[in-house]
Amino acid sequence: MTGDRLIEITHSDDPRIAEFRNIRDRDLVGRENRFIAEGTVVLRLLAEAHAAGGDFVAEKVLLLRNRAAGLEEIIAAFPPDVPVYVAEASVLDGIVGFHLHRGVLALGRRKAEPDIGAFLDRLPEQALVLAGCGISNHDNVGSMFRNAAAFGADAVLLDETCCDPLYRKALRVSVGSVLTVPYCRQLNDADLLTALAERGFAIWSLSPRGAVDIRAVPPADRMALVVGTEGAGLPQEILSAFGSLRIPQAPGLDSLNVATASGIALFAMASLIKRV
Amino acid sequence: MTGDRLIEITHSDDPRIAEFRNIRDRDLVGRENRFIAEGTVVLRLLAEAHAAGGDFVAEKVLLLRNRAAGLEEIIAAFPPDVPVYVAEASVLDGIVGFHLHRGVLALGRRKAEPDIGAFLDRLPEQALVLAGCGISNHDNVGSMFRNAAAFGADAVLLDETCCDPLYRKALRVSVGSVLTVPYCRQLNDADLLTALAERGFAIWSLSPRGAVDIRAVPPADRMALVVGTEGAGLPQEILSAFGSLRIPQAPGLDSLNVATASGIALFAMASLIKRV
Repeated sequence: MTGDRLIEITHSDDPRIAEFRNIRDRDLVGRENRFIAEGTVVLRLLAEAHAAGGDFVAEKVLLLRNRAAGLEEIIAAFPPDVPVYVAEASVLDGIVGFHLHRGVLALGRRKAEPDIGAFLDRLPEQALVLAGCGISNHDNVGSMFRNAAAFGADAVLLDETCCDPLYRKALRVSVGSVLTVPYCRQLNDADLLTALAERGFAIWSLSPRGAVDIRAVPPADRMALVVGTEGAGLPQEILSAFGSLRIPQAPGLDSLNVATASGIALFAMASLIKRV
Repeated sequence: MTGDRLIEITHSDDPRIAEFRNIRDRDLVGRENRFIAEGTVVLRLLAEAHAAGGDFVAEKVLLLRNRAAGLEEIIAAFPPDVPVYVAEASVLDGIVGFHLHRGVLALGRRKAEPDIGAFLDRLPEQALVLAGCGISNHDNVGSMFRNAAAFGADAVLLDETCCDPLYRKALRVSVGSVLTVPYCRQLNDADLLTALAERGFAIWSLSPRGAVDIRAVPPADRMALVVGTEGAGLPQEILSAFGSLRIPQAPGLDSLNVATASGIALFAMASLIKRV
């Protein structure tokens, strides 16, 4: 049954798979919100997101020929108008520009960036959100989404200086959580946090110099955990305008990396409000 | 003063800096325990480790010429018999084989892998250790050391299937913690954990299927947190032979990555025994 649906690609310059060409060197993000999904787990989440009629649609799938049989169920979850291309390893490597040993790719599109005001207005009465300011590292953005999903956060809010979470590596590191956790990427850091505070969120910035031990944060119906870049960290005006939290550590060391720190703090806050 | 000490390298094939040649494509580990240290923080920790007379010695330093002035204090911390080479950017890039924008390298050596029995016998009465089984990803091994340092763990124990933490990327991701947290990499997983159990350690393996919530682990004088690979995780015989812990998460998701999970669990255990 799946066999009928597979479309063979025999030349790497076939225009039907042009979006997958040399994917290491360029990113599609910014081209009408298109993105590359890699790997079986992300492919499955893209199929589910498409079927749910939410923010994401699948446009095409490209598989290593010998992977198709094992992915029959996921392929069947895509509607019939999503073409599923297959290619031999030599052709696929020629398309993407390197050896793609997992052999599972898809082209997706985010319908539109939501309006931030409307997005925040839709958050539930009891809400835990993760906000990132100036996170430009793709791995860190991806890990933040993975942690947000693991601990049941209601949304991820990124300021406009964060990198796009639909970048190939960020999406891969998130293990597809970018497709499942609602998010916005708008506004500068101060405006974003002010918009959250206006909606009743207790704002807690995470910093090695934070005033409150993460184990002593007071519970609240709406809580926002804010993380900044490694190195410089959050600007002082943000730390002093809102509450600040620290993860207690052995003295004299570099702080934890932002992925691990956000995981520890989200776990503490999710425990506090009984999300986990 | 530092100026007198700097030795100019003008050709990338100069034999005095041969160990730094094409460092991306090969690793020195295994060649008499030599390793490449990168970046200012790791360079400083290597100087401190050398001065302390412990497990590590510095053999030579190689800097981008224009970085030397800013590193005067760290350079002075190396004894006079450690040569400090400098090169212009074009020469340095020719040596290492890519554009090294940070421009700070050193060659170090670990004196010897300690005997595992003697190493474990030296652990303090009250001890928290992090053990890794089958961790082959360099980033994850590096993150484990960074977390162990942050939460005051007394040692990291790696089974013989883990990658060497002195690999260039693991050392870099650890932000030099591999040079500060005592460690061993010996034995298979079962023998390593048995050796810990024989010395009174409560053994807690971390797994999404763990029996005990991480927030309910009973305190003990000696505790070992055990983490396995992502994906397969720890073998079932290990999970059932010792205690197992889970980090509670939203249902139906992929588990946290091993770096984040080890950070969360170490923080919980370090809190329990008042290390932080």
